[in-house]
Amino acid sequence: MDAYNDEHFLSSYLRLRENPNYNDLLETPAALSLLPDVKGRNILDIGCGFGASSAYFADAGATSVLAIDASERMISKAISDNSRENIEYEVMRAEDLHTDRKFDIVWSSLVFHYIEDFGSLLKTIHDHLVPGGILIFSQEHPLTTSDYSGHYTEDNDGNWNGYRFSSYGREGERRSLWFDTEVVTYHRTFSTIITSLHDNGFVVEKVLEPLPSEPAISIIPRMKREIHKPSFLVIKARI
Amino acid sequence: MDAYNDEHFLSSYLRLRENPNYNDLLETPAALSLLPDVKGRNILDIGCGFGASSAYFADAGATSVLAIDASERMISKAISDNSRENIEYEVMRAEDLHTDRKFDIVWSSLVFHYIEDFGSLLKTIHDHLVPGGILIFSQEHPLTTSDYSGHYTEDNDGNWNGYRFSSYGREGERRSLWFDTEVVTYHRTFSTIITSLHDNGFVVEKVLEPLPSEPAISIIPRMKREIHKPSFLVIKARI
Repeated sequence: MDAYNDEHFLSSYLRLRENPNYNDLLETPAALSLLPDVKGRNILDIGCGFGASSAYFADAGATSVLAIDASERMISKAISDNSRENIEYEVMRAEDLHTDRKFDIVWSSLVFHYIEDFGSLLKTIHDHLVPGGILIFSQEHPLTTSDYSGHYTEDNDGNWNGYRFSSYGREGERRSLWFDTEVVTYHRTFSTIITSLHDNGFVVEKVLEPLPSEPAISIIPRMKREIHKPSFLVIKARI
Repeated sequence: MDAYNDEHFLSSYLRLRENPNYNDLLETPAALSLLPDVKGRNILDIGCGFGASSAYFADAGATSVLAIDASERMISKAISDNSRENIEYEVMRAEDLHTDRKFDIVWSSLVFHYIEDFGSLLKTIHDHLVPGGILIFSQEHPLTTSDYSGHYTEDNDGNWNGYRFSSYGREGERRSLWFDTEVVTYHRTFSTIITSLHDNGFVVEKVLEPLPSEPAISIIPRMKREIHKPSFLVIKARI
């Protein structure tokens, strides 16, 4: 996504990531719960950002990590903050993924909702996996991508009591503002996501819509409202 | 579900089914779109109701249909209205499914949201399928089972502009009124449904959240609002 090349956007984004947030408390633990032992594995990290996940894989014994991100600034920061001998950082868009290498695990955190052609992306990933290889990805929940004006509702005492949204059945482009920057995402229904995985040669093994733990809620109390509508979708699939 | 044995409930239900409705215009076409050629196949119809689907399979060339329903009254009506030489109607709850026969296709329309133990049901169905056999089922959409007080919202001009619901992340029993009869259903998230299928030996091939066609909308204009939140979930899975 181009916004990650914008300096103002990036500094806001990095400030957000400095303190425990929804990603740290909800999305990352859920995705990591699906990760097998990475020792001796070759891993592709799509949308590696500033390299935190790639460094984690390298430190956990991965043989190699190819870490790609569309943002030059992110890759620069990854190289300066999270270099490891067996990580190769490259500026590359997920849609342009091309390498002669094959991987045991493809990992992608919160990138796929930026991708217009999901089927083509899955086909490319399939071609870069070894037989039996796995894809683990997270994305914004379809009820989020459906409608960025969607919002939790409150009762008279200010307790969150539900969620209101629209247009779940209308797939395609969504434009929204994040840190004053226009961000383009693509809404796909649950059914399209699962069916596309099958149609492109994947067996869906596990789907998560993570809910916050009690400790997470004590850090960010508004996470309680996730019970009404989760923010993330996390999937493990195998070829 | 016990309500289908209640005379008042049953007569209201049958009146509803006399005219084209959501099932006829939305759920049934979607489920049928996933059905392979039934010629020469042995089919199990779980929750056959008054036998419309079983008769359809028989007339389309199925070798045999075992059609079960928990309601004696439904089975009586099925026998009187939809008898065929190769259909066997039996009063049997889905949860108690037991027969020495194995099936090429298990079909179940709008029954699974009444079942408390989904994993156990899937295991039983798996045991009654031939290798490569398929399960096609529809159920109320998880956003419906989540909250029966959920409702479409309207703008000032009375146009449907969204949907409001609660408690998606809280799985389990729901009690609601249908024709003045209390009905008990079980809410499961999307992720639980898909993951349970995999965990019980199924490969999920196709998931649908059907939207109404233009002709359907011309018959029932309020179907337009399905674009905000679909009513049904339809799944095809193979062992």
